[in-house]
Amino acid sequence: MENLKIGLCGTGNVGLAFAKSILNSEILIKQNYGLNISISLIGARKGKVEGLEGIPIVKNILDVTKSNDVDVVVELIGGIDDAYALAKATLKNKKHFITANKALIAAHSKELFELANQNNVHIGFEASVAGGIPIIRTIRDGLISNRINSFAGILNGTSNFIFSKMSDDGLAFDKALLLAQKEGFAEPDPTFDISGQDAAQKTSILATLSFFQHAVMENVYFEGIDKITPQDIDFGDQLDFVLKPLSVGILEKNGITLGSFPAFVKKDSLLASIHNENNAVLMNAENVGGTMYSGPGAGAKPTANSVLSDVIDVGRGKVFDYKKFVQNAITSSFENFSCDHYLKLSLNDKPGAVAKISTLLADYNLSIDNLIQKELDRNDDVIPLVTVISNSEDHIIKKAISDLQNLDEVQGQISHIRILDI
Amino acid sequence: MENLKIGLCGTGNVGLAFAKSILNSEILIKQNYGLNISISLIGARKGKVEGLEGIPIVKNILDVTKSNDVDVVVELIGGIDDAYALAKATLKNKKHFITANKALIAAHSKELFELANQNNVHIGFEASVAGGIPIIRTIRDGLISNRINSFAGILNGTSNFIFSKMSDDGLAFDKALLLAQKEGFAEPDPTFDISGQDAAQKTSILATLSFFQHAVMENVYFEGIDKITPQDIDFGDQLDFVLKPLSVGILEKNGITLGSFPAFVKKDSLLASIHNENNAVLMNAENVGGTMYSGPGAGAKPTANSVLSDVIDVGRGKVFDYKKFVQNAITSSFENFSCDHYLKLSLNDKPGAVAKISTLLADYNLSIDNLIQKELDRNDDVIPLVTVISNSEDHIIKKAISDLQNLDEVQGQISHIRILDI
Repeated sequence: MENLKIGLCGTGNVGLAFAKSILNSEILIKQNYGLNISISLIGARKGKVEGLEGIPIVKNILDVTKSNDVDVVVELIGGIDDAYALAKATLKNKKHFITANKALIAAHSKELFELANQNNVHIGFEASVAGGIPIIRTIRDGLISNRINSFAGILNGTSNFIFSKMSDDGLAFDKALLLAQKEGFAEPDPTFDISGQDAAQKTSILATLSFFQHAVMENVYFEGIDKITPQDIDFGDQLDFVLKPLSVGILEKNGITLGSFPAFVKKDSLLASIHNENNAVLMNAENVGGTMYSGPGAGAKPTANSVLSDVIDVGRGKVFDYKKFVQNAITSSFENFSCDHYLKLSLNDKPGAVAKISTLLADYNLSIDNLIQKELDRNDDVIPLVTVISNSEDHIIKKAISDLQNLDEVQGQISHIRILDI
Repeated sequence: MENLKIGLCGTGNVGLAFAKSILNSEILIKQNYGLNISISLIGARKGKVEGLEGIPIVKNILDVTKSNDVDVVVELIGGIDDAYALAKATLKNKKHFITANKALIAAHSKELFELANQNNVHIGFEASVAGGIPIIRTIRDGLISNRINSFAGILNGTSNFIFSKMSDDGLAFDKALLLAQKEGFAEPDPTFDISGQDAAQKTSILATLSFFQHAVMENVYFEGIDKITPQDIDFGDQLDFVLKPLSVGILEKNGITLGSFPAFVKKDSLLASIHNENNAVLMNAENVGGTMYSGPGAGAKPTANSVLSDVIDVGRGKVFDYKKFVQNAITSSFENFSCDHYLKLSLNDKPGAVAKISTLLADYNLSIDNLIQKELDRNDDVIPLVTVISNSEDHIIKKAISDLQNLDEVQGQISHIRILDI
């Protein structure tokens, strides 16, 4: 029976769920893997943790990394600076480091991978992307003999929950956000999720593993989700589209293209079936083709379980060698990313407006695939016009939108949503 | 650089795809994993293999297991008897054994796992279930700290292809089967797939890994898919159901319940979005909740890739200990499996038929959730009646169907399709 002693830093929801899942799975793990796992030391500033009485506590988390009674440090404190200091100290002290912290991995994985390699210890971060879905090990282990050409995923559960409620129940963005907060799927300050930063960080982590190129958040083009209106979702529905918060990574000859933004997908596509707070990742690999992995993207228990699976890996001697992932990523500008586009313009009820718009789009060599014009309310003097533009590069459609925005006939902000055929 | 020499037995489609994928991935595998993988010996009765000239060949496949130039034997010959003899000889000669052969693993995994453990070698069978989807390693490694409570999946690509074509294009079973054969998704003799045996074997393998109980095909209740008519699919559509070839495994107090049969699922469910020849597995685990894995379920390239990922595992020293999986499964009879049921009866156009049927169902304490009666053709003297029976155990509904079948008012065979809420 091998003993594995854990130093736990961070005793919030996930930390407590992790401690509980160890107690729940202890016997199973002993029986099935011959591993004796226990929390031997806790790092907690307050000096005491309700529910974990009886386990020694130190107030300075860095002391956890120095203890002879700790084999692996589990970091669940969140934030970047303290977690970064903890990670470095852990690895330098030749202890394994396991974290659920996507911000930390997205920002510092290069240095941390190198440190782990130098000290011959493991760094586990299964919980940092897609919560309970074992996507990190799937890319790292399951698809290893494959060249991964691209991925597409729903990586932010908050955004997916909000879009689902807007689609299914016709809620406006603000109402859907309030509901997400009420049900625990959005933080009191939801900026990080709805700005797209969270998804961008996760995208960079998946890209690093998929393409053997160290990507950081700055390599990812991203947009927030707060500009979407129920009207956009309705028009999408008429066109047989569902709105999803998508993240994509594509390996191309001149570099990798990375992006996170709201996008329409076809109603019968795989990603369209991922509802509410769930996450999914669709991997496209050379030999195997497309495989998809989906499940709960967040929540204390799924996250804790992913952390525990990393701990068990360490116990079973599965120390992964990340030295091949430290080459800086060569990214191709998102300006050249090409797809179909949905545009919704609000027009003055003046004759010739549609002709003017069509001419402008034709000047940009953009072809209109679909055009919906509906007088929603006869008393209103503004008429929505929806067009689908086929296959345009991002910089071209953006220039065209900027010109359209300047037309006298166009009122308010133009809605622009990319359409992805995946 | 570690060298890993492969003895390849079986040089059909998958064998050749495997050899090709080694050539394609050789550099990638060297760079990323420091592994030098090569096929050093081929076992082929004919004594020569087109496309693999230059590699030594032996005509007796058992000689491959004795060669000092072979570290791992890859079995892609199929069938049970020869593959079984090859597996035993390989493991006894302390070489690793990797196979795509579900029939072999379903029938003999207990003995083979024990042999592998005794000789401290690895047995890999990622390709035996769900082709290119890394489901074996996901259960084995990714969900290890979890108690798996149940799984449900689409494990037979041929059946899913046939049902998809019946649903999407309104084809009859025979036509859909012909199309599947034409497109290479069904064998010339499709018995094994459409009888449900293939799915039952895969179900037993997933059950063994999920529940730490050694299950064989005899533990699995299964039905074929050839009784389904386009009319059933149409009625299902009206009730918001999609027909899928499902396999389920459920851990219950008094044993595990295993089954493979055609079933209706809700249109907006995850499994409903798995189209054509694709496979999917939905795992329900205690801590993480439901996660789903989907992708191509068959095909030479995806299968070859799964085999290659097992080979790389061996090269990286990941030898899994299967000794905990050799306890015989305790299965609970499928008779007690409980779900909703769809019944379609063809009735004589006589007054009182519906009343008689309702009374009979009431006598069995079965409650009718939904009833559709349509006169499809006024010239026809037979009227289809569709009912949905809520939550009944299998033995009760089967008795009721047998009684209904004996009524004078009921013409032809009653259609019975289980409805699963997953």
